[in-house]
Amino acid sequence: MTAAGRPHPRAAVDVASLVERARSGQARAVARLLSLVEDESPALREVMALLAPYTGRAHVVGITGAPGVGKSTTTSALVTAVRGRGQRVAVVAIDPSSPLSGGALLGDRIRMSDHATDPGVFIRSVASRGQLGGLAWTTPQVLRVLDATGFDVVLVETVGVGQSEVDVARAADTTVVLLAPGMGDGIQASKAGILEIGDVYVVNKADREGAVAVRRDLRSVLSHTERPADAWRPPVLLTSAQNGEGLDQVVEELDAHLAWARKSGELERRRLRRAREEVEAIAMTALRRRWAGTSDGDRLADLAARVLAGELDPSAAADELLDS
Amino acid sequence: MTAAGRPHPRAAVDVASLVERARSGQARAVARLLSLVEDESPALREVMALLAPYTGRAHVVGITGAPGVGKSTTTSALVTAVRGRGQRVAVVAIDPSSPLSGGALLGDRIRMSDHATDPGVFIRSVASRGQLGGLAWTTPQVLRVLDATGFDVVLVETVGVGQSEVDVARAADTTVVLLAPGMGDGIQASKAGILEIGDVYVVNKADREGAVAVRRDLRSVLSHTERPADAWRPPVLLTSAQNGEGLDQVVEELDAHLAWARKSGELERRRLRRAREEVEAIAMTALRRRWAGTSDGDRLADLAARVLAGELDPSAAADELLDS
Repeated sequence: MTAAGRPHPRAAVDVASLVERARSGQARAVARLLSLVEDESPALREVMALLAPYTGRAHVVGITGAPGVGKSTTTSALVTAVRGRGQRVAVVAIDPSSPLSGGALLGDRIRMSDHATDPGVFIRSVASRGQLGGLAWTTPQVLRVLDATGFDVVLVETVGVGQSEVDVARAADTTVVLLAPGMGDGIQASKAGILEIGDVYVVNKADREGAVAVRRDLRSVLSHTERPADAWRPPVLLTSAQNGEGLDQVVEELDAHLAWARKSGELERRRLRRAREEVEAIAMTALRRRWAGTSDGDRLADLAARVLAGELDPSAAADELLDS
Repeated sequence: MTAAGRPHPRAAVDVASLVERARSGQARAVARLLSLVEDESPALREVMALLAPYTGRAHVVGITGAPGVGKSTTTSALVTAVRGRGQRVAVVAIDPSSPLSGGALLGDRIRMSDHATDPGVFIRSVASRGQLGGLAWTTPQVLRVLDATGFDVVLVETVGVGQSEVDVARAADTTVVLLAPGMGDGIQASKAGILEIGDVYVVNKADREGAVAVRRDLRSVLSHTERPADAWRPPVLLTSAQNGEGLDQVVEELDAHLAWARKSGELERRRLRRAREEVEAIAMTALRRRWAGTSDGDRLADLAARVLAGELDPSAAADELLDS
């Protein structure tokens, strides 16, 4: 695509060529596209427009669970299982950075050295900063790039703490909730949320005492959940991720859930909701920027000052903002 | 204000009269106003417009800390201390409901029976549902009502889990971070976030082993934080909330922080930021409603469908949304 010998400015990105190389399977080109996302590069608009026709093919699988249940090990074992079928797989590790410092606490959380040299595996950490919840609003764009550049499966791993569990479920076609025996109160406390988001439940560390009991309890609770007759019934599987045991069955259930979701219309519903939220988030971010910095100064700051002075209530101020 | 004998529909609210009664100290009228907030009543616009001139007088104090450090007990003891000075005090307990179920997990978390019959004390739980983080966007309105109806101090108590710590700090003039000895890893893990938000640190359960060590460690870490010469230096106090020990000193430090914040301009900065976020949140909610249901159907749903079909990328869809 680039005419050899023609000098061009160093900063310019030949977007069309980059997209083409990423789509042909070059990992470095994929990484470059993701850096454009993280840098909020102006070139992104063109990238996303070029990728749009190729989206919607990957199976996006969310993986969540409390700290200590073995998420990274399970993710790594899942990668092995998916690779065993010859499919390409990408891993997105959501980094629960402090919303204040913006720093990465668990930077290198995933060290999947087994896969480091496998060209069919792509791994990336994404900071979870961002106003709109646990997942950065760049995350949907990262997923979109990986989807459109030919990864068959995209695993999104997050720390299961409060809101992020829900966020990962919203971002995924299929959500895996991981548990482990001996986690005590942690499991109890989060059960309410957990029961609503899992499509596949995995009790890891199956060789430990109590794993079978955790599965039995969870099955019992799930069986009491009211569901329509044609609804998906989440399976509860046992694994020992460290030994790679039980992972093939997990992959089978992921496939089964995808097939059900496609047939039932649930996949389209989830993806429509996701697209909707993404469009809304982008529009809102654009508006916030517009409100914060207009040619006649910071409109929002002026209104906030009038609210503080008691001249306006916030709703009246919001009306003025929207009318402007 | 109401003309006796004039029949009026049951559902109608005589807002002006209600506001007047709330401002004259009638707890039932205050409770009624807060119900209007929670119900998102159309009458709210008028309520907020009437209250606007009276806002900005209360000292809003956020109280956060990990589960088990004694937040409810400390809040109750603080209420006693503030009442001892003859001031009126309101308590807002943020209820960490599941964002999915919307249900209240800890409904009656605060049972401050000591204060149940005291007309100078007002207690209310608020659900923390809401898209914009740990605090519902109704919370600012609740604080506004309590501020404008003459409470000298408004205590906002929340469970210190991730985002909610930051949210309570954003909502407050002064933030109290509670710790306790023997919390082990919990304190360590959350220290990074804690060090950035506290204006006053309180080590509760001072009679337990290790309380003095927790204070020493915290002081040591805080002393290594770079601060400008005229910055507030957060004190670290010991309390035994169950016995009411040390609370007067906490109240003194709350006063000292408020006085510093007023003088330094920090109070105005925080309140401006709060007003700004509130106006922005209201405007965005209004926009979302407008986008979701217009006379020509659900505009966002149409755009999401086109994104899903690969016809548009989300940024282009957002442009169409904003142009419409």
